[in-house]
Amino acid sequence: MNFITDNFLLQSAEAVQLYHDYAKDMPIIDYHCHLSPQEVAEDRRFENLTQIWLAGDHYKWRAMRAAGVDEKYITGDASDWEKFQAWAETVPKTLRNPLYHWTHLELKRPFGITDKLLCPATAKAIWDECNAKLSQPEFSARGIMRQMNVKLVCTTDDPADDLRWHKKIRDDKSFDIQVLPTFRPDKAVQFTPDSYSAYLDKLGTAAGGEIKTLDDLLEVLKNRHNYFHEHGCRLSDHGFFWFFYKPFSREVRNQSVRDINDGSELECAVLCHVAQWDAEKNWTMQLHIGAIRNNNSRMFVKLGADSGFDSVADHAGYAHHLGLFFNSLDVQEMLPKTIVYNLNPNDNEMLATMIGNFQGDYSRPASPAPRPSKMQFGSGWWFLDQKDGMERQLNCLSNLGLLSQFVGMLTDSRSFLSYTRHEYFRRILCSLLGQDMHGGLLPNDMNLIGTMVQDICYNNAKNYFGFSSC
Amino acid sequence: MNFITDNFLLQSAEAVQLYHDYAKDMPIIDYHCHLSPQEVAEDRRFENLTQIWLAGDHYKWRAMRAAGVDEKYITGDASDWEKFQAWAETVPKTLRNPLYHWTHLELKRPFGITDKLLCPATAKAIWDECNAKLSQPEFSARGIMRQMNVKLVCTTDDPADDLRWHKKIRDDKSFDIQVLPTFRPDKAVQFTPDSYSAYLDKLGTAAGGEIKTLDDLLEVLKNRHNYFHEHGCRLSDHGFFWFFYKPFSREVRNQSVRDINDGSELECAVLCHVAQWDAEKNWTMQLHIGAIRNNNSRMFVKLGADSGFDSVADHAGYAHHLGLFFNSLDVQEMLPKTIVYNLNPNDNEMLATMIGNFQGDYSRPASPAPRPSKMQFGSGWWFLDQKDGMERQLNCLSNLGLLSQFVGMLTDSRSFLSYTRHEYFRRILCSLLGQDMHGGLLPNDMNLIGTMVQDICYNNAKNYFGFSSC
Amino acid sequence: MNFITDNFLLQSAEAVQLYHDYAKDMPIIDYHCHLSPQEVAEDRRFENLTQIWLAGDHYKWRAMRAAGVDEKYITGDASDWEKFQAWAETVPKTLRNPLYHWTHLELKRPFGITDKLLCPATAKAIWDECNAKLSQPEFSARGIMRQMNVKLVCTTDDPADDLRWHKKIRDDKSFDIQVLPTFRPDKAVQFTPDSYSAYLDKLGTAAGGEIKTLDDLLEVLKNRHNYFHEHGCRLSDHGFFWFFYKPFSREVRNQSVRDINDGSELECAVLCHVAQWDAEKNWTMQLHIGAIRNNNSRMFVKLGADSGFDSVADHAGYAHHLGLFFNSLDVQEMLPKTIVYNLNPNDNEMLATMIGNFQGDYSRPASPAPRPSKMQFGSGWWFLDQKDGMERQLNCLSNLGLLSQFVGMLTDSRSFLSYTRHEYFRRILCSLLGQDMHGGLLPNDMNLIGTMVQDICYNNAKNYFGFSSC
Repeated sequence: MNFITDNFLLQSAEAVQLYHDYAKDMPIIDYHCHLSPQEVAEDRRFENLTQIWLAGDHYKWRAMRAAGVDEKYITGDASDWEKFQAWAETVPKTLRNPLYHWTHLELKRPFGITDKLLCPATAKAIWDECNAKLSQPEFSARGIMRQMNVKLVCTTDDPADDLRWHKKIRDDKSFDIQVLPTFRPDKAVQFTPDSYSAYLDKLGTAAGGEIKTLDDLLEVLKNRHNYFHEHGCRLSDHGFFWFFYKPFSREVRNQSVRDINDGSELECAVLCHVAQWDAEKNWTMQLHIGAIRNNNSRMFVKLGADSGFDSVADHAGYAHHLGLFFNSLDVQEMLPKTIVYNLNPNDNEMLATMIGNFQGDYSRPASPAPRPSKMQFGSGWWFLDQKDGMERQLNCLSNLGLLSQFVGMLTDSRSFLSYTRHEYFRRILCSLLGQDMHGGLLPNDMNLIGTMVQDICYNNAKNYFGFSSC
Repeated sequence: MNFITDNFLLQSAEAVQLYHDYAKDMPIIDYHCHLSPQEVAEDRRFENLTQIWLAGDHYKWRAMRAAGVDEKYITGDASDWEKFQAWAETVPKTLRNPLYHWTHLELKRPFGITDKLLCPATAKAIWDECNAKLSQPEFSARGIMRQMNVKLVCTTDDPADDLRWHKKIRDDKSFDIQVLPTFRPDKAVQFTPDSYSAYLDKLGTAAGGEIKTLDDLLEVLKNRHNYFHEHGCRLSDHGFFWFFYKPFSREVRNQSVRDINDGSELECAVLCHVAQWDAEKNWTMQLHIGAIRNNNSRMFVKLGADSGFDSVADHAGYAHHLGLFFNSLDVQEMLPKTIVYNLNPNDNEMLATMIGNFQGDYSRPASPAPRPSKMQFGSGWWFLDQKDGMERQLNCLSNLGLLSQFVGMLTDSRSFLSYTRHEYFRRILCSLLGQDMHGGLLPNDMNLIGTMVQDICYNNAKNYFGFSSC
Repeated sequence: MNFITDNFLLQSAEAVQLYHDYAKDMPIIDYHCHLSPQEVAEDRRFENLTQIWLAGDHYKWRAMRAAGVDEKYITGDASDWEKFQAWAETVPKTLRNPLYHWTHLELKRPFGITDKLLCPATAKAIWDECNAKLSQPEFSARGIMRQMNVKLVCTTDDPADDLRWHKKIRDDKSFDIQVLPTFRPDKAVQFTPDSYSAYLDKLGTAAGGEIKTLDDLLEVLKNRHNYFHEHGCRLSDHGFFWFFYKPFSREVRNQSVRDINDGSELECAVLCHVAQWDAEKNWTMQLHIGAIRNNNSRMFVKLGADSGFDSVADHAGYAHHLGLFFNSLDVQEMLPKTIVYNLNPNDNEMLATMIGNFQGDYSRPASPAPRPSKMQFGSGWWFLDQKDGMERQLNCLSNLGLLSQFVGMLTDSRSFLSYTRHEYFRRILCSLLGQDMHGGLLPNDMNLIGTMVQDICYNNAKNYFGFSSC
């Protein structure tokens, strides 16, 4: 096979050297993912390839649906083997989709399968070989993380979460990979008439306080923010269909949050407060903008959220709002380190330049030492987490900001098999830089460019986030 | 000449093999065009190159205007030869515009001219040579279609059309290329205060019924839909500046359609009903979104519509509406096979992911057998029907959907000389895939990739549309 | 060094020949810049590299802020040498940003430094060598313009400006480079409640008339338009966050402009009148659309406008307004030659096609001779003035209009060192065309393509603008 070779994606001698001498061996800080901390704490062993590879992977589900696979073999009651067969039938139809690359990168690492492509003819052999490996300790949740040279991961957690599994992991001295929570208060920030009140009950219970007014909500959330901080959390995260900023009055804080109609002022108030706590604690705020979710109500009824019926939104005109939001924090010297991710690549240039308006840090004594590129343009997210999408993000950041200061890649994944996305990203990064060196667009100085590669792969993230150690 | 060679656009050995061994000889299903069925029925002979090449071709007219040609030589009273001369002067100014490629592809096929580029110095020789050929039977309307290996074309027709020419073609046993109508009810769907009522009169007359209420209109349209179906129609088509969905009440059906002010509810009601009829008959619904038409009122007065004064709209924020529209049909299990085309490439990612929310078919007994990628992201349309535009569509579909299931290219053309756009598309497709094979982005498996090429060129369309034969 | 060589960016033999044989020696018409006419009139000598290179260059300031440099070393009270050191520390962090290319292109020309890259280790040597050169007459404001083969520049000037420096330059027979003003009435067109009235006072004083009504304002502005024309001005220029067209009534002309609330009707009225005067005098109107300015209010208070806190706006949906604006002028046969520049590349396709609706000229006796591509899609502006941005503009114009008629590059710069941006543009242009020739996408006819290169570099601008001589 000339596919997924050692020099996969590395189309110049310079790229080969950058990847193999500088990028390949850097450890992984996966600062945003959706892994289950319970599965790490319990060091889950996976029964078979369907369990670790297909369960919960709505990227694959979408491809299977587009390939005409019956839902029975996707989320239905077919057996694990039948589901795997259906996936094997789908894979050859995904040529040029990132799934085709990811699939074979993951079969190569950690499974070591390099002599066959997944298709109906090879399905049984791959199934057997992978399942045999999955029964070994090196292929448990922790085993895979160790194999992939992971130093630290940040999961995504609701403020109501008690973080019991994170504690368990931290207290287990036999495991030295950090698994930290991320504070994701979407259910508190985003007012949804049907479920908001029930969520406030749950949150209040978790924090031991009743939530009647916005002030109550903020107090409870701040307690949880503190609690997360004590458990090692250093990032918050927020998802938006579109970004909207509405100045809120102080009076709103005493109003009831149980019987409101328009949540916009409330939402902005909560978000701004979380941002300020982030700034106070030197956390990093993440904004994920532009997903339009649960478009298919027939399937939402059957499967709920996160089952493959989300897509890219196309709302323009939010630069103004985002600027006002950042500015409202900046004038108070309360703008935290921030990473903005967009789902529609149309927003690339707007975001890559908007962050440039707020890079300068303040000089008041109490503030943390200024650091380069406090405002970050995040790596290609979700649908954009593929070669074209990553290249567009890297090129846009290069042209409009400082690539050298970029905190790099994350998996955003629910699966322990996704760490090769860091490899994929590193190969793409080295390919771009190598091509530029080869073509005279960058100086042919391997040390200069190689150092930048290592920074983007690991050092920048290490320095940026301020984790207690990694 | 090293231009428009046999390996034009094929920049790797793999691309050359893909094109020549797999793509080149596939027949053509041109499922969307604007040919005149009368000209096919009458097997029109064209007097000269201006008649077949310049008359009605507003792509060329725009280029001539941008090149400073006086309107007299474009749509005015200059002679056909003078108009051709003006075009020959314009052509060297179109370097890097798709017109430069199209022009010379069309001179090569079917005219066989490969030794000269069109410019003032060669104009007379090309004029004479082409005109001589045009007088031969192989260069009649039908002759050209046969030369170009066309199996089936779908024209674009108003519901009021009596389809007499389609019938005549079907009944002519000497001609075995299918020429089918497409149901395009824009004048019934889109409420335009000035002309709507007059159109309803015309439509009512065609269908033998008077139209007073929306219910009347729907009944008449459904009759015409049935009539089109009997005449082989399997697609509907709709054009939009921007896509807007507004739920409509049942009551609206009894309201007069003669004296309304706001057409939005009416428009959505008609569109949703046509979509349901499409679903019932297993037709394919086409949505063309994003043209801003008739921008130049000075010229509109002189020349009317479709004369080169349309351009690309930039209205964002319709993902939400499109999702609601699809969902409203999907919950009723009435979402037909659908192809969405956009004129602004900004919409690529939104559309390529939006269709992914509705790929799954239903399992009710009455529904047709599910087929892969029932929702399609259409080929680069109009202004985007050029190398960059097609590559962006192909790459976007690859990254966010399944390229392998794509129903491929169409001419969208008014001219019998446009079939080389299929050749152009196939070369571009093979070039992309060959480049990926060459660079190790795709497995170097010629049969695997070649089969995908053949599917996209012909087989997918053949299987998708369900024409009675082709 | 293999960086910034003679064949920098020229990645085919064809590109090398196009650049060296056709592009390189063409003179420069820099039809849009922000140079100080006073510095030309006084033939300013620059004390040191910081004065000519860093002072006022908010592109560099943004990069320094993103690199974590303290504001003291950017716009603060650090010494010129300290500021240069801070810039030298920043430069290696700008790899892949256009600043890295611009920096070394400018060190090469006019300074002749080709053996070192700017970084902390080389900062002192470069500082000394450049400062020594800056003390020589060839490196005065005029000296640099002569070295760079500049024929004509157009500065950017407020209607209230008395143009004294332009007169001084024109009257100086020892200097034969034309330095013409551009009429930029943003402060008169754009209603800003806080400062509008004060500006009208200033403008009235300059024109010797009091401004009470819109009619007064138009009369004063027209006087200034005439005055600018007498001083060689042939272009107007207008900046917009978003483009909005609102038809205005005749009555509005008699209304007070001193106590209005909503400026939209006023703004459109003024803009339309300026456009008509442009048409009458055969000027060229420039529209710069899509900057969102002064986002950081903390820094705006400290540094004012144009200090590096502007970015790319993302407002869609202005095609309709722009079309109405152009059409309102076109129906009166009063649409001037126009260049539209966008800051968000999302607008490329919309603009490149919108201008195509208004290319045709009128045939009334009084109108100037029609010229090709009267409507122009402007070169990559500001944040887009980099390799990717320029390539996207060139490719978009090629695909959707006529590249051959393009009036080409401008610096848009405040610095006398920016003329290598024309070199950068020419290399990128030749690279694209050479690559197309090499790949068989363009005929391999060096004279045909080389002539087009020379037209885009110089001849088209010379013919288009109608300067009295150049």
